[in-house]
Amino acid sequence: MTSVAEPERSLGRASGSEFDQATGVTSEGPHAYRAELPQKWRVGGGINGGLVLAVAARALGAELDGSPFAVTAHYLSASRAGVATVRTKALKRGRSLSTGTASLLQADKATGELRERVHLLGTYGDHSRLDGEVRTSAVPPDLPPLDECLPIDGASIVTHMDVMDRTEIRYDPSCLGWLKGKPSGRGVMQGWVRLADGRDPDPLSLLFVVDALAPVAVDFGLPGWCPTLELTAHVRADPAPGWLRVRHSTRNFAGGLLEEDAEVWDSAGRLVAQSRQLAKAPKP
Amino acid sequence: MTSVAEPERSLGRASGSEFDQATGVTSEGPHAYRAELPQKWRVGGGINGGLVLAVAARALGAELDGSPFAVTAHYLSASRAGVATVRTKALKRGRSLSTGTASLLQADKATGELRERVHLLGTYGDHSRLDGEVRTSAVPPDLPPLDECLPIDGASIVTHMDVMDRTEIRYDPSCLGWLKGKPSGRGVMQGWVRLADGRDPDPLSLLFVVDALAPVAVDFGLPGWCPTLELTAHVRADPAPGWLRVRHSTRNFAGGLLEEDAEVWDSAGRLVAQSRQLAKAPKP
Repeated sequence: MTSVAEPERSLGRASGSEFDQATGVTSEGPHAYRAELPQKWRVGGGINGGLVLAVAARALGAELDGSPFAVTAHYLSASRAGVATVRTKALKRGRSLSTGTASLLQADKATGELRERVHLLGTYGDHSRLDGEVRTSAVPPDLPPLDECLPIDGASIVTHMDVMDRTEIRYDPSCLGWLKGKPSGRGVMQGWVRLADGRDPDPLSLLFVVDALAPVAVDFGLPGWCPTLELTAHVRADPAPGWLRVRHSTRNFAGGLLEEDAEVWDSAGRLVAQSRQLAKAPKP
Repeated sequence: MTSVAEPERSLGRASGSEFDQATGVTSEGPHAYRAELPQKWRVGGGINGGLVLAVAARALGAELDGSPFAVTAHYLSASRAGVATVRTKALKRGRSLSTGTASLLQADKATGELRERVHLLGTYGDHSRLDGEVRTSAVPPDLPPLDECLPIDGASIVTHMDVMDRTEIRYDPSCLGWLKGKPSGRGVMQGWVRLADGRDPDPLSLLFVVDALAPVAVDFGLPGWCPTLELTAHVRADPAPGWLRVRHSTRNFAGGLLEEDAEVWDSAGRLVAQSRQLAKAPKP
């Protein structure tokens, strides 16, 4: 399993995109894929959860021959840079939608035993076959123009946030009070987002984007670690090329947990993805 | 598997509650439970999805020795009244939270082959161990008092809606314009809810309650069948006894699909559950 010196990224696009390289998986026989989680998607001591989700979701897309419509991930242990195995299982193959599971595993450093990092349950299909009617009543986030929004310098906040260099994020300045000790207390985080490698968004990359902003807890003045227990994303359309507008918010911060809702709007003004996660709140 | 004449409802409470009877499961050895889906929870030709979810979730709670914190269900085929088997699997057993899957199966009438009805992925724990801090910024739905809200008569709308007699629902009259051909077009459905058997809510029954109201699509004048593809519920606290306030809404009705968000507030004014589902929209 570890003998492939230069694994063929058979299911990552040969686009030169670092996102596709990082999420590329190689078939290793029925229902098994090999991946390699790169160091440069690191966050703290582990690998960014959104990236790990996208890796497993790509393998599940190969198993089910489709794009993600609804994907749920439960995070079971922290992923590390290096080799990973994804095991997939189809539960139902339908005419328009198919459902299955994916389990991403890595060998434990000490014992060599395979440990599950993330477990996915997802339904996949073909977004191009959806009808074109859009009755969306939600409105896009009220964001200042791109050139009035600001990047944040990861290095000034925490160490080993390599993943921050994998995206370009321009935050709404009204969400950045926390950097100066003046969080807004609204529980909102929003901005413009694209992959740093210039790759345009697609249903797979949206699974990463829904969890790419700084956690909303910072807007309450709680800048600690917010581990995701569960994240569910609905990808509702193939996104148009270009910058995405992303809004995160929370309304139920209680009992040491918070939900975090994300909306992703594409450059054509379509609400292309919605997600909700349940995360542990940082200690006040 | 079918030889138990009067199955001991070992994991349904001996409370006389028809909800507990209907969701009761009997252990049949490691990781396997027997259930019986009663006809009186029927909706159209199948069994109500929320009830089926609660059955599988009860078995998963037995496997993981906890109450549901975050549960996702993907619906794979229509459940029928009669015997069902639930197979459970623990993915992780943690100190405070454990994660696992549950699969509810029934024998196909024609072939006898086991077919999966619903597949669950869930994280369970102990709500009484959560800290007591509540910073919830969401506000309860603005509902008229209970005695100004109205039941709807299922029999006048569709046949075989036995499940409607299993709950008492008092709808906000502003959401009932659709019954007179004047839907509000807001995509909102809200009201007061309790189980008809008088059983007080708990984390398990909230998994049923989050999908108990009429689908929000009726508020667009689309009263057809809205099959759920995926539903994720977060149960955030042990609910206080009494009536629940439930609000459903949708903001992204597009491409033949819609999300449906639900909030459940208990009698003490706590937001005890949130859910989101992805459903197929009825044909206009």
